[in-house]
Amino acid sequence: MLRLHGFAVSNYFNMVKLALLEKGVPFEINTVRGGQSPEFLAISPRGKVPCLETPDGFIIETNVILEYLEETQGGRALLPSDPFQRARVRALTKEIELYIELPARSCYPEVFFGGKVDQAIKDKAREELTMGVAALRRHASFSPYVAGAEMTIADLMFLYSIDLARAVARKLFDTDLLADWPQARDLLERLATNPNVQRIEADKKAEMAAFIAAMGAKN
Amino acid sequence: MLRLHGFAVSNYFNMVKLALLEKGVPFEINTVRGGQSPEFLAISPRGKVPCLETPDGFIIETNVILEYLEETQGGRALLPSDPFQRARVRALTKEIELYIELPARSCYPEVFFGGKVDQAIKDKAREELTMGVAALRRHASFSPYVAGAEMTIADLMFLYSIDLARAVARKLFDTDLLADWPQARDLLERLATNPNVQRIEADKKAEMAAFIAAMGAKN
Repeated sequence: MLRLHGFAVSNYFNMVKLALLEKGVPFEINTVRGGQSPEFLAISPRGKVPCLETPDGFIIETNVILEYLEETQGGRALLPSDPFQRARVRALTKEIELYIELPARSCYPEVFFGGKVDQAIKDKAREELTMGVAALRRHASFSPYVAGAEMTIADLMFLYSIDLARAVARKLFDTDLLADWPQARDLLERLATNPNVQRIEADKKAEMAAFIAAMGAKN
Repeated sequence: MLRLHGFAVSNYFNMVKLALLEKGVPFEINTVRGGQSPEFLAISPRGKVPCLETPDGFIIETNVILEYLEETQGGRALLPSDPFQRARVRALTKEIELYIELPARSCYPEVFFGGKVDQAIKDKAREELTMGVAALRRHASFSPYVAGAEMTIADLMFLYSIDLARAVARKLFDTDLLADWPQARDLLERLATNPNVQRIEADKKAEMAAFIAAMGAKN
């Protein structure tokens, strides 16, 4: 059986978990927070979660795991079959990751973990986030899903990136990224009614206190 | 015919160009440097190159373009057919991009374009680059190619990322990333004998003076 390594507060872990649940693929979870121990680096070379254990070995990087599930598992398809449309979905997914999630992530230490982020890094994050959101609004459909009529991997990336990016923009830049973007808000409302999304949210809440305590102990 | 938009000094442009040449796919080039004009944003939502024009429309993001070529074009395969091995190659490609190319990129303004990069950003780049190289050394084969016996998209990403990262580390951190990494140096030597790599290098040299002049005019 597939085994997903990671933890319920990790947004990338939750992208893969939602894909598995939407596809109806059986899987086990090994709760682990990643890190630089030799044991963990042996299964995840950069020390990150999630990591998917398959009969052939371990697979890292969320979008790579999503592609693997698409290629090897049945259930709900999260990529279109037409090559050009697949490329569009992959590009939207990548744009959300590179131009929204990653700039926001550079500010997580200050926004979520009581640390301090240098002003130069915040300034860069703000500029990149602004351009990333503008790019996504140019490229995405939101009709009602990010890429069009069907839920795809772009929605998983959007769902578990935009909330964190929004929190960063609110706290550090005094801006609501979704203020004049009703299509994005509508999609989040729609996704919030999905039972698998609700289950993931409940699991996250249940694990949050332990995670915050662990991060506090680390700092 | 496929039309590749970008310019010969862009490392991501050259990854796609090398894939097209290795596959023997006919293509045209439209030399353009990207940017935020409404015309260019209409074909590339984040204003970046490369961008591939296909009969169905434009495709952005290098790894997405590479996947599209793999799915639609004949010629030399640059991804293995086995799903687990494909996942490994995709993960290696992504690791090089996220953990080597992108941290190095944050320093390009100072290293290549006569600008200044804030110390906090350089410190972060140094830490990430160090961890990224360590992760790649843990995960890659270099036997002789990044993922094993065959050239894959991971080699394209490696070839056109490690040289720039090495220049960044040399200039800013007084470190040679390849100093105790003979396998990586051997691979670069091997790739340098590839006629398509040589052609791309010659095209890059021919365009470099104009590019430097344009960047100087911008600063």
